[in-house]
Amino acid sequence: MTPALADALKACSEEVETALDGLCPTSPELEGRVFDSMRYSLFAGGKRLRPFLVLAAGDLFMVPHESSVRAAAAIEMIHTYSLIHDDLPCMDDDDLRRGKPTNHRQFDEATAVLAGDALQPLAFQTLLDAATDPDAGIRLELAQSLARAAGADGMVGGQMIDLQAETTSYDLDQITRLQNMKTGALIAWSCEAGAILGRATAKEREALRQYGLELGLAFQIADDILDIESTPEEMGKATAKDAEAGKETFITLMGLEGARERAAELVHNATARLDLFGERAFLLRDVAAYVIERRS
Amino acid sequence: MTPALADALKACSEEVETALDGLCPTSPELEGRVFDSMRYSLFAGGKRLRPFLVLAAGDLFMVPHESSVRAAAAIEMIHTYSLIHDDLPCMDDDDLRRGKPTNHRQFDEATAVLAGDALQPLAFQTLLDAATDPDAGIRLELAQSLARAAGADGMVGGQMIDLQAETTSYDLDQITRLQNMKTGALIAWSCEAGAILGRATAKEREALRQYGLELGLAFQIADDILDIESTPEEMGKATAKDAEAGKETFITLMGLEGARERAAELVHNATARLDLFGERAFLLRDVAAYVIERRS
Repeated sequence: MTPALADALKACSEEVETALDGLCPTSPELEGRVFDSMRYSLFAGGKRLRPFLVLAAGDLFMVPHESSVRAAAAIEMIHTYSLIHDDLPCMDDDDLRRGKPTNHRQFDEATAVLAGDALQPLAFQTLLDAATDPDAGIRLELAQSLARAAGADGMVGGQMIDLQAETTSYDLDQITRLQNMKTGALIAWSCEAGAILGRATAKEREALRQYGLELGLAFQIADDILDIESTPEEMGKATAKDAEAGKETFITLMGLEGARERAAELVHNATARLDLFGERAFLLRDVAAYVIERRS
Repeated sequence: MTPALADALKACSEEVETALDGLCPTSPELEGRVFDSMRYSLFAGGKRLRPFLVLAAGDLFMVPHESSVRAAAAIEMIHTYSLIHDDLPCMDDDDLRRGKPTNHRQFDEATAVLAGDALQPLAFQTLLDAATDPDAGIRLELAQSLARAAGADGMVGGQMIDLQAETTSYDLDQITRLQNMKTGALIAWSCEAGAILGRATAKEREALRQYGLELGLAFQIADDILDIESTPEEMGKATAKDAEAGKETFITLMGLEGARERAAELVHNATARLDLFGERAFLLRDVAAYVIERRS
């Protein structure tokens, strides 16, 4: 990781955590437990990749961080809810996430379901508030595109396909579509959100969206590689679960070398999309290189 | 039930089901199972009370049904998601809903979680689409107020309080607050949505909101009474669960007669809010009378 990227990621984490703290405060009321549960997972660490992409894409258009950090917080809320629900016993049944007990292990299953359920509308509330952008049309576009990315045609649909992977043998096109929906949709939205807030041209917005999709896929392939090459200690969660469950991954379909090559090619393509923005897109270039070289 | 109300409820069901069919179609793709699961619960019948309130409140302001039926569909999506998740084994653990297997019994738990998760963004997508209203500010207000009503300060918060009712002894104020959040928030939103679409004055909007809150509370007290007076066959779901779980209800706190009187008083107050609209609010008066006289 370049020093500039490390600094930018750290600064982003701080900014987005301050925003999340204000948007999702503790509550002294009887419903306080659901806020505690939401906050437990919102502040469980993580790379804050999606918030970073929102801020960095917004920076290309000089979007003030008071605006872009709200979109960054919103996408982290959606991402966090999806992790809480994915970890549930009826889904991936995971006990650890980022080295800590998963939400339903720390609280209980019912509370974890509710915390996820409440993070979704909080994300939309955050985007739709006038503080995100003075122009109602811009807020509307952000919320509409997020709803599409998060729903049955996007992230949730991808998770539905993934759940069936243990009993269905997918080919490479199907795995690619699955991952584009499950992971790519939110990552692409993060990049697009910066463009929407920045009043980007259609061409600029599309370039950032494609960058996001390619980055998301490279990220997922790298995840598959880490899943078989890392220990649970390094990853802070259970590993090699896909192979044990007999699920097809990019590695079973392309081989380890083929998967590495494909990830590098995707990063190359994603980086080329940034030519439109010249030198000032250096952080987005750095993060693209980072997603395939990371060790956790 | 008055014949006019019976006709209006039937017409509303047909309108909203046609809208839901278009907004949540089946899918031939690999993720089709989540659409099947969403549709299973969306089309499981039910009174369609919330959609009816949207349409009837909108009718006071001559809101075209092409508009109001979309807000009606959106609130039914949120209501349906909440039922799917509330029925889960980790929540109320119900096997029957409206006389049919609950979603997780018909599909499986993971699919039921995902179906609920996908209905939330679909509701926001539906509201935010230009077809709901040409004015972006109106769509925004609808979605923002729904996000607030559905989240941790509204419905989900109410469910969190309710889950703790087995181990905490609530007083009447606390039970009232719980129900205002859990049930009242969505019912009040339904009435308010008609007012928002109808460009109502602040006074008209507030009257409809208060009508909705009082109606919602009366509805809940009537539910508590039905819960102890009806058989599972009449209700199409398990009954007397609150009493068995040792939870306080309006009846344990006020007695059966006290609860009946309170429900009647709430309906009286709710009806008085409608004086502002004169004779043309007759369907909203009829439905208020109906919620405490219904047998299921």
